[in-house]
Amino acid sequence: MTKDSEFQLKNALKNCKAFLEFPSISTSPSHKNDLHHCAEWLKNYLIEMGFKADLYPTAGHPAVIARWHKAEGAPTVLLYGHYDVQPVEPLELWETPPFTPNIRDGYLYARGASDDKGQVFCHIWALRQLLEKDGKLPLNVTLLIEGEEEIGSPHLMDVVTEHQELLKADFGLVSDTPMFAPGMPSICIGLRGLTYMEMVVQSTTGDLHSGQQGGALLNPIHALAKMITQLKNDEGKIQIPGFYDDVLEMPAHLREQIAKLPFDEQAYQEELGATDLVGEKGYSTLERRWFRPTLDCNGIVGGYIQEGAKTVIPAKASAKFSMRLVPNQDPKKIEAMAKDYLKSIKPKGVTLTFIDHHGGHAYRVNPDHPVVDKAKAALKIAYGKDAVFQAEGGSIPVLPSMQAALGIDFILMGFNHSNDNIHAPNERFSLECFEKGIIAAHAFYSSFKK
Amino acid sequence: MTKDSEFQLKNALKNCKAFLEFPSISTSPSHKNDLHHCAEWLKNYLIEMGFKADLYPTAGHPAVIARWHKAEGAPTVLLYGHYDVQPVEPLELWETPPFTPNIRDGYLYARGASDDKGQVFCHIWALRQLLEKDGKLPLNVTLLIEGEEEIGSPHLMDVVTEHQELLKADFGLVSDTPMFAPGMPSICIGLRGLTYMEMVVQSTTGDLHSGQQGGALLNPIHALAKMITQLKNDEGKIQIPGFYDDVLEMPAHLREQIAKLPFDEQAYQEELGATDLVGEKGYSTLERRWFRPTLDCNGIVGGYIQEGAKTVIPAKASAKFSMRLVPNQDPKKIEAMAKDYLKSIKPKGVTLTFIDHHGGHAYRVNPDHPVVDKAKAALKIAYGKDAVFQAEGGSIPVLPSMQAALGIDFILMGFNHSNDNIHAPNERFSLECFEKGIIAAHAFYSSFKK
Repeated sequence: MTKDSEFQLKNALKNCKAFLEFPSISTSPSHKNDLHHCAEWLKNYLIEMGFKADLYPTAGHPAVIARWHKAEGAPTVLLYGHYDVQPVEPLELWETPPFTPNIRDGYLYARGASDDKGQVFCHIWALRQLLEKDGKLPLNVTLLIEGEEEIGSPHLMDVVTEHQELLKADFGLVSDTPMFAPGMPSICIGLRGLTYMEMVVQSTTGDLHSGQQGGALLNPIHALAKMITQLKNDEGKIQIPGFYDDVLEMPAHLREQIAKLPFDEQAYQEELGATDLVGEKGYSTLERRWFRPTLDCNGIVGGYIQEGAKTVIPAKASAKFSMRLVPNQDPKKIEAMAKDYLKSIKPKGVTLTFIDHHGGHAYRVNPDHPVVDKAKAALKIAYGKDAVFQAEGGSIPVLPSMQAALGIDFILMGFNHSNDNIHAPNERFSLECFEKGIIAAHAFYSSFKK
Repeated sequence: MTKDSEFQLKNALKNCKAFLEFPSISTSPSHKNDLHHCAEWLKNYLIEMGFKADLYPTAGHPAVIARWHKAEGAPTVLLYGHYDVQPVEPLELWETPPFTPNIRDGYLYARGASDDKGQVFCHIWALRQLLEKDGKLPLNVTLLIEGEEEIGSPHLMDVVTEHQELLKADFGLVSDTPMFAPGMPSICIGLRGLTYMEMVVQSTTGDLHSGQQGGALLNPIHALAKMITQLKNDEGKIQIPGFYDDVLEMPAHLREQIAKLPFDEQAYQEELGATDLVGEKGYSTLERRWFRPTLDCNGIVGGYIQEGAKTVIPAKASAKFSMRLVPNQDPKKIEAMAKDYLKSIKPKGVTLTFIDHHGGHAYRVNPDHPVVDKAKAALKIAYGKDAVFQAEGGSIPVLPSMQAALGIDFILMGFNHSNDNIHAPNERFSLECFEKGIIAAHAFYSSFKK
């Protein structure tokens, strides 16, 4: 590393840390003001760089739109990202506080370091470097950085629809997906969709004494467990009638390409500390993670959960669960199917209600899109090697909606590692990824120079 | 009510409230000092009454033993009770704070009001009245009031064994069971035993992103749900091999007597706000609650349980569960059977560990015991009507152990209502029960006058 680039990295990190310090947890109503402050900070930072920027309030958290549109005749890129983050529980498992960014062992640790503030900042810093050096950008750039991605972007499409003119672009760009492996630059060609919901099972008005009433009625935890068990069979197939009807399989030539990726099942298992890798019968681990729909309980609670013992039969128990979807599965249709099925298997002796959370369609990128070649070239400059195609099991539900509303394709060029603990304690972003992310973004934008 | 008895009741309530103010939650290590203070208060109160009393420290919370042994040639009664209480969660459901006793609508509201401080205090007040009026008692009285009943009395037998001479008595007396119905004085002839444990299911080292890893491995919530589901079949039969082998059925003539009790299923269901009454096939609701062993999950937790949504696959999930046992079932044997069975059905892809909580044998009272007649006569004085025999689904695990160690039978004469919310928010004790309990205790002790 040269002295100058070392100074640049330090400076970039310092600026990025300020962004990471905001506890912008979008799912938690108590953090509403923190999101607003974070958006304000971002807006002002971009204005200082030379962008025109503003906050666009929504019924939830505001979105930031920033534009630099002085490259007459050049194409326009819409960079989409998000400044909101996931919750931090269980807080006690964080080695350093989630909103006090900490650098150790070559990593930047903070909630949002990888998902997505750190990656968004790679682009911002690259644009800042270009503006500082050249006084201009080689293409027109619009940034759309929202505050509700982690809760399913419930209001972003209101902003997109209302400000369609402002957001008009030739293509979109997103850095919110991991690389296939450290040192392997990657273009992501698929994201799964999502339906997230919660079921609440109740048997009595209040909690009961497990001795005095035990045996008289159905315990809601048992009812809930039974219903969860009936959601999948022993071969990992989801039992909701019609669930697989609309599934669009990944084209064979892309499946083959991806089957050639150097995926080490043993190493993956060890990395997760997993007892075993098990899942839907008939599919490889990578296929199960990327191309197949899944169903997972994300949380369950009922009765006494503190230390020690309490002889109680709870009045109610509930589970949050979500399904990852593949192209052509409609989240609303799947949600309705799941509810119908659960109602049909609800045992006698309890009531069942639902709480809807968010959802979104799956997304598939055309690997032959001309801008994909530019992204590959930029990654080659940063990493000195060719990028691979991969897919991603996670979801960015708003991408398919924006694709439809704005008529543009989004290119997915992500910079982080898959073991960066996003959505978990000790989220991090390697300093190498941070630096190479800036270089790749810089090279990508520079490639539009005439 | 006469002016004098009104004054007496007010005075008794005032004294009892002081006892109820201690947050003596035995399962919570943070309340250790509160238990000690509560025991000290009780000791001093009994000394002031004329008893010899002391604290008997254990590896856990201390027991209070108090003796008045000046009735030469008269029999000795051992009154057993407990000054510890259940946890108070969910705290937000209490209408008034659990440790600020509050009188409203004819009830005394507080944690421990019925279970068991309030009932113990009925005896203490009756003994105090006798001592104040006569300057002596008609029989020898030993009080053994412990601080660990709600966690299964893990150390009481150490005290009983070491101080066997001190605790020597002709019979035991307990007021820690409810009446069959308001206004129906009751003698309890059976208590169920208990085995309480916890299972922890783990799949990975840390929590994972449900998009990135979803489909690759077994979600521990699903594994746990499946195992819970396999604990009972659809007819409510417990599926642990050998579970029913040692069950001793209730004698037919007692079953018949109890079948004649005016139990209104519809009213019971409405009182609990239960959607339905369901349970083991082939048994009535009362039989399922009193004479049949049961299995209930008392708590379950895993993953994200706060408001909103988090797309996580938890690393682990756990459930507390307990089995109520009937005479001749051995809690340790049942615990081992349950573990063996759960290990045998554990799905591939998770590890399984156990946390042992408490346990104890069931207890059965001989309805022909001569002191049972004295208890019935005392209840007739208090209520003006004959007491009925009933059983109780809850457990007092230490009774069978003390019966064996001290060679005495315990008579169970309880004063509270079954809807007094013991182990739940808004625990209470009706003022009528409190007063009649004092009268019954007074009459019982007085019946030993020569």
